[in-house]
Amino acid sequence: MKELDLIRAIAAREQKGRESLECGIGDDCAIFRPEQSEDILITTDMLIEHVHFDTRWHPPYLLGRKAAAANLSDIAAMAGEARYALLSVGMTPRQDTVWIDDFIEGFFSRLRDHDCTLIGGDTVASENLTLSVTIIGAVLQGAAVRRRGAAPGDIIYVSGPLGLAAAGLHYFKSGGRDNSQWPTSTKCHLDPNPRLDLARKLAGNDAVTSMQDVSDGIATDLRHICEASGVRAVIHSETVPGHEELYSFCTEYNIDPLSLQLGGGEDYELLFTLKQNEAEKMEREMSSDPDKKIYRIGIIEEGEGVHLRSADGEIVPARYKGYEHSA
Amino acid sequence: MKELDLIRAIAAREQKGRESLECGIGDDCAIFRPEQSEDILITTDMLIEHVHFDTRWHPPYLLGRKAAAANLSDIAAMAGEARYALLSVGMTPRQDTVWIDDFIEGFFSRLRDHDCTLIGGDTVASENLTLSVTIIGAVLQGAAVRRRGAAPGDIIYVSGPLGLAAAGLHYFKSGGRDNSQWPTSTKCHLDPNPRLDLARKLAGNDAVTSMQDVSDGIATDLRHICEASGVRAVIHSETVPGHEELYSFCTEYNIDPLSLQLGGGEDYELLFTLKQNEAEKMEREMSSDPDKKIYRIGIIEEGEGVHLRSADGEIVPARYKGYEHSA
Repeated sequence: MKELDLIRAIAAREQKGRESLECGIGDDCAIFRPEQSEDILITTDMLIEHVHFDTRWHPPYLLGRKAAAANLSDIAAMAGEARYALLSVGMTPRQDTVWIDDFIEGFFSRLRDHDCTLIGGDTVASENLTLSVTIIGAVLQGAAVRRRGAAPGDIIYVSGPLGLAAAGLHYFKSGGRDNSQWPTSTKCHLDPNPRLDLARKLAGNDAVTSMQDVSDGIATDLRHICEASGVRAVIHSETVPGHEELYSFCTEYNIDPLSLQLGGGEDYELLFTLKQNEAEKMEREMSSDPDKKIYRIGIIEEGEGVHLRSADGEIVPARYKGYEHSA
Repeated sequence: MKELDLIRAIAAREQKGRESLECGIGDDCAIFRPEQSEDILITTDMLIEHVHFDTRWHPPYLLGRKAAAANLSDIAAMAGEARYALLSVGMTPRQDTVWIDDFIEGFFSRLRDHDCTLIGGDTVASENLTLSVTIIGAVLQGAAVRRRGAAPGDIIYVSGPLGLAAAGLHYFKSGGRDNSQWPTSTKCHLDPNPRLDLARKLAGNDAVTSMQDVSDGIATDLRHICEASGVRAVIHSETVPGHEELYSFCTEYNIDPLSLQLGGGEDYELLFTLKQNEAEKMEREMSSDPDKKIYRIGIIEEGEGVHLRSADGEIVPARYKGYEHSA
């Protein structure tokens, strides 16, 4: 039975103990002892083959890493630390022992990157490969960064170039299979990097007024911040960070790069707002570490909706649709 | 989009606030503040149509209740209180608005029964109806009842008649659709009752040495307790509680009732062990409330495995296989 293969693959891997874990896998529930003075964060995603990922181009090891990363990114978006994970897998006859082992190895490697321990889950038979991942994190009481704090005058930032994951997906969906041709884009799609360290560093002072991760494209993600905060956002289109490879890719595939930068999802960068009077100081502070550079892309104003200001000053509603999924 | 219908059905329902809930649905993560002096419990199940349930006979309202109940039962098995739920649904084109609304109403009604609040989840498109439910509970620090505490001499108990859910499933799988013909069995299959109140009452003193819920049939479930505790169990077959309807059903369908009582799953009763010198007192205490009556079914001994002692004293390994699933 596939289910037993998965259970064996998990049991074969040692995990670092965590003092607060009273009971991991193997009883009716997992049990952990929360630390005083902390709030608990919890987030979950369901990922289904042909809807959210495609095993034709997604190697199991990287799929395991990405399944963990997508949820870890939600913990990052609240400026939390990851602690525990649950993994449920609905498996088809197409997943053999090697596939299962690689997938679990990838999932565990991404958990290890963020000191996160698998404490439970479920394995079942399914016609479509189905993943359900839950991550439990923690943050000092009251210190979680919500979507609702953006105020007029705040500056909008992102934590890295946008659109690369969408370019990678486009490449694979167009039939491309040579990752070395577009190494950065394909890596961004296959193995995104959740920004937990950066988020905690950012949130270490009170300059950050709202934050979320870039999962559906910033045009959509920024709308969530605007709705939660009761404000409008104006993106300065010429400042949205791209990447040399993105521009080459878009030239070759005849795509407007901005459509990927605003509408392409799964970048898993952070999208956040800073108080105007702290923004420059924060930019300087973060720029000392190239991994933690942040990019100013617009401003929060009174009103509603997400708008785009072109270089010539014209302002139009940002109409880029949410992310096109993997299949 | 189906996904929006589900989100709307959830948003349309008010939930009782909970002081410790800092942020429910609508941000990157849910946030709650754990209470000092409590441990957190967490359990998750993935349920897939045609594997774990069948919408041909399972009305959406009752499917919603059962999806919640199965996980609530795991919280009961640790003697915990339920607090929060996550619900992810992979929906097919076959779920219309009415179906979705009934399902959510049922899910919420079961959560309300146990003062549990939905705080997150995910909705996606899927070819097979797929449910992933996570329940977060709590228990006084160190008070969770594990599977591993059974010791030789302890008496084995269950909290109610066994085999009815399996009879109900057998009836539906045989093509039966008239629930009124076997009202107790079909109800047990469609809308099981997690025993959270009973579990907390039982665990209120130190007599309970191990506990789990009856999900795969006691022959299998008791093996988990034996393995975790390093002991063997001897079930006295004539004492396993049945039900008048079960015996009539088994006569009509020519089934050995004991095969359903030992091998039939999803009864969601409690299976537990009591210290020998406290067992009689506990039995008397619990018998004052007919809802909390407990049934002595065997004894824990040194050794390993689950065994069956017939009325004439012969002892054989219990060979009943785990639960036959819904489809």
